[in-house]
Amino acid sequence: MPTPHLISYHAGDMRCDAQELAALSVELEAARQTLKKKKAAGEIGFLSIPGSAGDLKPVTALAAKTTKNFRHLIVVGIGGSDLGARAFIKALARPGKGMEVHFIGASTDPDEIAALLDRIDLAKAAINVISKSGDTIEPMSTFLLLRKMLVAKVGAKKHARHIIATTDEKSGTLRTIADREGYATLPVPPAIGGRFSALTPVGFFPAACAGIKIVDLIAGAADADDQFWSASMAENPAALFAGLHRHLARRDGRRVTVLMPYAEALREVSNWFRQLWAESLGKRSDSGFTPVAAIGAADQHSQLQLWTEGPADAVITFLEVEKFKKNFAVPNAYPDIEGVAYMDGHTFEEIIHAERKATAMALTKAGRPNGTLTIGSVSAKSVGAVMYMCMLATAVAGEIMEVNAYDQPGVESMKRAMYALLGRKGYEL
Amino acid sequence: MPTPHLISYHAGDMRCDAQELAALSVELEAARQTLKKKKAAGEIGFLSIPGSAGDLKPVTALAAKTTKNFRHLIVVGIGGSDLGARAFIKALARPGKGMEVHFIGASTDPDEIAALLDRIDLAKAAINVISKSGDTIEPMSTFLLLRKMLVAKVGAKKHARHIIATTDEKSGTLRTIADREGYATLPVPPAIGGRFSALTPVGFFPAACAGIKIVDLIAGAADADDQFWSASMAENPAALFAGLHRHLARRDGRRVTVLMPYAEALREVSNWFRQLWAESLGKRSDSGFTPVAAIGAADQHSQLQLWTEGPADAVITFLEVEKFKKNFAVPNAYPDIEGVAYMDGHTFEEIIHAERKATAMALTKAGRPNGTLTIGSVSAKSVGAVMYMCMLATAVAGEIMEVNAYDQPGVESMKRAMYALLGRKGYEL
Repeated sequence: MPTPHLISYHAGDMRCDAQELAALSVELEAARQTLKKKKAAGEIGFLSIPGSAGDLKPVTALAAKTTKNFRHLIVVGIGGSDLGARAFIKALARPGKGMEVHFIGASTDPDEIAALLDRIDLAKAAINVISKSGDTIEPMSTFLLLRKMLVAKVGAKKHARHIIATTDEKSGTLRTIADREGYATLPVPPAIGGRFSALTPVGFFPAACAGIKIVDLIAGAADADDQFWSASMAENPAALFAGLHRHLARRDGRRVTVLMPYAEALREVSNWFRQLWAESLGKRSDSGFTPVAAIGAADQHSQLQLWTEGPADAVITFLEVEKFKKNFAVPNAYPDIEGVAYMDGHTFEEIIHAERKATAMALTKAGRPNGTLTIGSVSAKSVGAVMYMCMLATAVAGEIMEVNAYDQPGVESMKRAMYALLGRKGYEL
Repeated sequence: MPTPHLISYHAGDMRCDAQELAALSVELEAARQTLKKKKAAGEIGFLSIPGSAGDLKPVTALAAKTTKNFRHLIVVGIGGSDLGARAFIKALARPGKGMEVHFIGASTDPDEIAALLDRIDLAKAAINVISKSGDTIEPMSTFLLLRKMLVAKVGAKKHARHIIATTDEKSGTLRTIADREGYATLPVPPAIGGRFSALTPVGFFPAACAGIKIVDLIAGAADADDQFWSASMAENPAALFAGLHRHLARRDGRRVTVLMPYAEALREVSNWFRQLWAESLGKRSDSGFTPVAAIGAADQHSQLQLWTEGPADAVITFLEVEKFKKNFAVPNAYPDIEGVAYMDGHTFEEIIHAERKATAMALTKAGRPNGTLTIGSVSAKSVGAVMYMCMLATAVAGEIMEVNAYDQPGVESMKRAMYALLGRKGYEL
């Protein structure tokens, strides 16, 4: 028997009959074949990620050097340039292991920048500025400010050894700056767009600095990749996730996609997914999904009322972790007080599983479609697998929705307006 | 001229003509009159909040004592019992001022509990357990565990002085425990439901422990209250917010409500609002909104593609802060590199305002309705005003949608399933 894959998917009551599921399987198989051809032709950059384990050396070497020399890593990026690393750090970093990683550059909020500078001694900090082009206003303005303060602190000569630029290998504003200053650089792979770049140097360098085994992240992605290409459609989390969402949107207008981890560690994975799913598939007024980053158990006491009795427009997917690192039993402090006595002896692991199950039961009873992605435990392998599975699901959805999942033309008008408001030449209103 | 109110609302292009707006005004005025009668009859508990400044003494006195004796405050609550305090702390707490406030009890994730226990010495911590009934599984199980560990650390006799229970004044499981143990208690006002309880001892005690002036939170609420009852509908943020969302949902099916602060400090205000709006109004399959807690500028590089080119189902409201506490100018490091040179001299305050403006322009160009709530600065007054305004908007929406905004029947089925799965008597499946 082959080793089971890292992720399993259990569709709850999706309110589909056998005929619908059979038709969906055919559609998904066709999408998989199309993706296979596009992969062979090198047309979809991110599909090369599972084979990229051999390219990790420059990242791990630079991370080792940076970890040796500095205590803090300040990551300066926005969107696809920082959400992946945020997910890795929240899920996998442990206090006292690796560098302390801080994120800035996604808000341009001066109070947030001031608060970071209050907390951190720049002399002990490395700065990882991430922008493919170097034309993105938020990280570049923040970087220029941090750089000036760093120069004031350690001098113009020494400042360069604090900075790592993750940018295009050949050209662009940040490449020009990095070459002039002699900064260490890491490449943003030219064929992989921002929101698909978590499992490249973009997300890997901060992860490695936090002591996370990036080789395991890739190994997890490779497992999800293998599962996607080899499993039948009925046992294929990426394909089923894409297919069921598409089908329920098309048939019933269910266009709200809720991803709800029952593990605090995975909170930022939903936030990363939120960009991937929205920006890749939100291309036409008759399709596209509103992703909702939920969290269990908290959102049972926040969103469940809406999901059970409000408009029938959501599909809820739980992200379940079978085994936690720690566990505790509820103490039997008050055996005579009925309102708490029944909890005696139950463990928190049992309780959090019961939370998910009770929510699934309530949704099913209310006729609201829901399903569960399950991983054994939170590890670099399982996190890599989940995130790569999400990328594959997005690619499949792009095929069956007939949209280009890899561009973002709708963001251009805001970017041009930003340049105009700040007086960049050639962008006058 | 009267002093201007703390909040102003500017509707961007809402795609409504004068006739629609006039009809909406009439509908909103009728709702205001209904609420006035209900307020006079004491039927809507939260409407008494602006007049409750005289009731703050027990909270401030207990907070002062707790702050004197302990370094950490661990807040154990879920949903309406902790989202309000989370919003206050994120917006207004400052390092080195007041206690360090930690939140637990919303996830039952054993790894999260273990991580908290690793960070904190319970001997230096007070615990504020919050549950009206004491029957809520998540906070009560977490509380029982923390209590046991506290007893192990400081002894059964001394542990009681570490604990403050915010619960029903007269009855319930937590009231029984608190009375037996001799814990200090604060009341959950009987007529105010969880999600409307931020501006009561539920949210006020953690806020006061963090050094926040709760009298200012109430003063802000009173300002929003005064504005609501006295302003014309055209200059009434609470009424307009409710009315425009209802109108655009009814007319166009726009049922996604995005609240997007451009200030990191206000991030948790949207998360608090997310429960208020979803749970209060998500009662019928033909109405109710999916709230999205967004954040500027980050979500311009995550959700804007969807909002401009995807389904026309969202109404976006920015929450703008005119003046930040700190400000910085972008340094002119590379005058010869065009890709950054144009930013020279612009401040971050200018940039973050340009971000909001550019996003509004892009949405308007794409025909997507958007508006802006503006406050002068982030302060206890303005945060109290914004949160109370949101409660008023929810009450108005409840009236014009003809739903009961104050119950949550859809959560009961999940609660019963939880009890059944954990073996509570009388709840067998």
